This record gives sequence, structure tokens and C-alpha cells, in this order.
Amino acid sequence: MKEGLKILKIGGNVINDPAALAKFLFHFAQIPSKKILVHGGGKRASEMAKELGIEPKMVNGRRITDQVTLEIVTMVYAGLLNKNIVSLLQKNNCNAIGLSGADGNTITAHKRIVKDIDYGFAGDVDQIGGKTISALLNSDLTPVFCAITHDAKGQLLNTNADTIASELAVGLSKGYKVELVYCFEKNGVLKDVNDEDSVIERIDLTYFDELKNDGIVSEGMLPKLENCFAALEKGVEKVIIGSPDVFYKTTQKCTTLAL
Amino acid sequence: MKEGLKILKIGGNVINDPAALAKFLFHFAQIPSKKILVHGGGKRASEMAKELGIEPKMVNGRRITDQVTLEIVTMVYAGLLNKNIVSLLQKNNCNAIGLSGADGNTITAHKRIVKDIDYGFAGDVDQIGGKTISALLNSDLTPVFCAITHDAKGQLLNTNADTIASELAVGLSKGYKVELVYCFEKNGVLKDVNDEDSVIERIDLTYFDELKNDGIVSEGMLPKLENCFAALEKGVEKVIIGSPDVFYKTTQKCTTLAL
Repeated sequence: MKEGLKILKIGGNVINDPAALAKFLFHFAQIPSKKILVHGGGKRASEMAKELGIEPKMVNGRRITDQVTLEIVTMVYAGLLNKNIVSLLQKNNCNAIGLSGADGNTITAHKRIVKDIDYGFAGDVDQIGGKTISALLNSDLTPVFCAITHDAKGQLLNTNADTIASELAVGLSKGYKVELVYCFEKNGVLKDVNDEDSVIERIDLTYFDELKNDGIVSEGMLPKLENCFAALEKGVEKVIIGSPDVFYKTTQKCTTLAL
Repeated sequence: MKEGLKILKIGGNVINDPAALAKFLFHFAQIPSKKILVHGGGKRASEMAKELGIEPKMVNGRRITDQVTLEIVTMVYAGLLNKNIVSLLQKNNCNAIGLSGADGNTITAHKRIVKDIDYGFAGDVDQIGGKTISALLNSDLTPVFCAITHDAKGQLLNTNADTIASELAVGLSKGYKVELVYCFEKNGVLKDVNDEDSVIERIDLTYFDELKNDGIVSEGMLPKLENCFAALEKGVEKVIIGSPDVFYKTTQKCTTLAL
């Protein structure tokens, strides 16, 4: 039987709030199974760009990564945020090791092909270095991935953190029973977007089709859920979407996706 | 018999020159034995501080690391420079993994005790995580250390890269036959500081005493060599001081220190 592996992704609502981050990491450190953390950090990168006099360029919620922006996100994601998270996990006796996709060749990607929009040094994932990641996990290390990958030809690339989490989940599902958890600013998939209590607790593929047809799932949530179901179809055991509170409050609702 | 391990330290003269860095990393990647790279990056950190409107504060060649300076060195050392070096090594088929001392709890330190000068978040090394570093080396990974450590209580610390190299060398000499190589801007220890051809090729402890008494070794070089001999006395096999050219040119002279 495959061993369990939890992959958690945290975003700005946790990272940009020191108290929320400390609380989350305290609880993350106590997860008894093998685990991986993936973090974003876009807001802090945008602040740093502004401090350096550079206006962040976004199209459809994605960053246009020119050379100087690549340097900034590399500094902020792989340096400032990643090492801060790693040191806080160490404080909680979790033997974390911070990684970009270049480290140990753990995530290779290619520069996104230019169609309508040139996203610059944005990377689309090609491969997960499962062997090295397993070696780290087997050394009782907890990988902490930032949203930087590389093309194995000397070029670092900026890659969406949600995508990194799902690619890791799919890539590692060959060897592990993977549970992928997206912590975000809502309590889960909501029946009524204005009511945080209207969490849909379980969605399978049939129900997902219904929710799409009824227009309950739309806009930003639709591609997110499509990616989650794609990951499930590629071997991931379970996907959970919810607030980070799901780790501290036993009564906290969240959405579980399964085929 | 112990396995060989080379630990190389590079400084600003290599890091700040893209062509020199590419050339060095190409040759470093080809070292057949187990190896570790340690890099500084003070000049780039000072430039970044200035871009952010912060004047670097130095006392006796050491940086005063206040909170904002710590954030800058963490960004520049652990993010920008470390990931750039790692991706270039990957290009050269060297499976590099970038680390701060917080990653894998590889280097613990304590905040320097304040005597005359408050260096702020400067760390003096307490312990090397030899078990984790060995596990990485045994997974065919090549650790690349930046000059950031941690206190295991959630605090990152700025630590001199020369010191990190010698502490790693000493800490790992229990399990490996360690050769420590300092690449710097001169060809080695010079008899005449103005003559790059006057490299002293071999210095043992007796000769070191002579050189000190004759005033040939003084100023900046004296503490550097004292640290090297201290490392030798603690089990390091050999220390080499020289230009990075020592890896490309068979005729390149350098200084070898041994007891």
C-alpha cells in the first residue's frame, strides 16, 4: 500500500499576516504524515517591485515576468518568504528544506510559448523530480516549495503556485497516496458566494457537472476546480479546498473533491 | 578510509562577474568527488540596499545587520544569487541544491553577543547538521550554501561566508576527508603583496610562524590563515587559497596549507 503524503498550498491570506502564518505553520508542523508545503507570495513581490520603482504588470491575474521582475520574484519567493517560512517551521521542530524547482532539479518547466500575450519568464511545468523529492522525504525532510522553477538550461522561471502544487501532487501520486489541500481566503466552494456558511462539503464529477450547469460554479472557481479534477483523474487521491482554519477547528467546514 | 569531500568558497570577484561565474561553475560541476559550494554576495546586497534607499553599515569589514538589512541579505543571498548559481549548475548537469543554514537545520548559530559593537542579526555558528548534509551528498546532490544561518528558534542570521565554509569543513571532517578551497582575488598567499607571481606554494605550521615573525603575513591575511590552521587542527585535511583559475589552468599556482 502506498504511503500517505499531504501537499498543502498557502497563499497571500496566510503569508502576508504574520500571526496567521505563525499559527498555520505551528499546526502544519504537527501533521504526522509526510508532507510538502507550497507557497505563493505575489503581494509581497508586488510591494517589493514598487519599492524598487517598478510597476507590476498583470494580465488576467497573471504576472508579466520581465528580467527585472524575475529577479524580484526570485528574491522575494525563494529568499525572503521561503527562508522565513523554513526558519519558522524549524522553530516548530519540523525539519523543513526550502526549494525552488531548480534545487535538486525538482521541477523543470519551459518558458511559456507566446500566443496573444508574452508572459516573459513564466514557466509551464514539464516534469517533477520525484526521485529526489522522495529521497528528501525519506530523510525526514519536509520540502517547502516557492513558485520558482527552471528550464534545466540555466533559466529560472516564475510559475503559478497553485499549478506547482497540483503538478507535485500528480507527479508524486505514482509513489504516494496524495492528498492535495488548497488553503485560500474562503471556507471552500460556496453555494452562495456571499455566504461563508454555504460550503459544499463534497463534490464528485457528476455533481461538478450539475454545479457548472446551474451556474453555481463560475468565474475564478471554475478553472481552479477543473484543475483539481484533472489532478484527481491523474491519480491524486483527494483534493480539499478551504480556509487554513480547517487545521485548527474541528468544526470548520471545507470542500472535498473526489472522483 | 574516509571518502573525499571538496568544499569551495567563492566571493565577489567570481559572483559579480557573469562570465567568471559561468566559467567557474562549468569547472566546478566537473569535480568528480563529492563537493559543496559556499558563496558570499556582499557587493550585490549592498547595491540592493542602496536601490531600496538604505545605506549599508560596515564596521571592520563586517556588515551591521538590522532588521531591514537582514531582509535584504536573505533576499539577495538565499534568493537571487543562490538560485542563479543553482540553475547554472543544473545547466552543467550538476544536481545542485541551494541551502541556507535553516534548510534541513544544516547550520545553527546564535545572534552575536554584543560587546563593543552591536552587529545586529549576525550569527556565530554553533553546529553543523552533518547527518542531513551527508544524506544530501549520498543522494548525489551538491549543496550550495549561502551566507544565511538560523538560531532554530525562528530567527534567520547573517553569517560570514568564509566562516560558513570553515565550519562546514570542520563539522564534516568527522565523516569525510575534507579539502577546503578558498577562491579569492589573489593567486594565494604572496611573499610580496604587489607581485602576483610571488605565491608561497606550501605553508605548514612552523613556516606560518616564520612568516608571521617576518611580517610577511599580516593585516587581512593573518586572521584568514589563523582560521585555516584552526580548521586543520580540528581535522580538515588540506586548505587551499588561490584564484578560481586554479581549476582551469594546470600551471596556476596557489597556496596549500597543511599541518
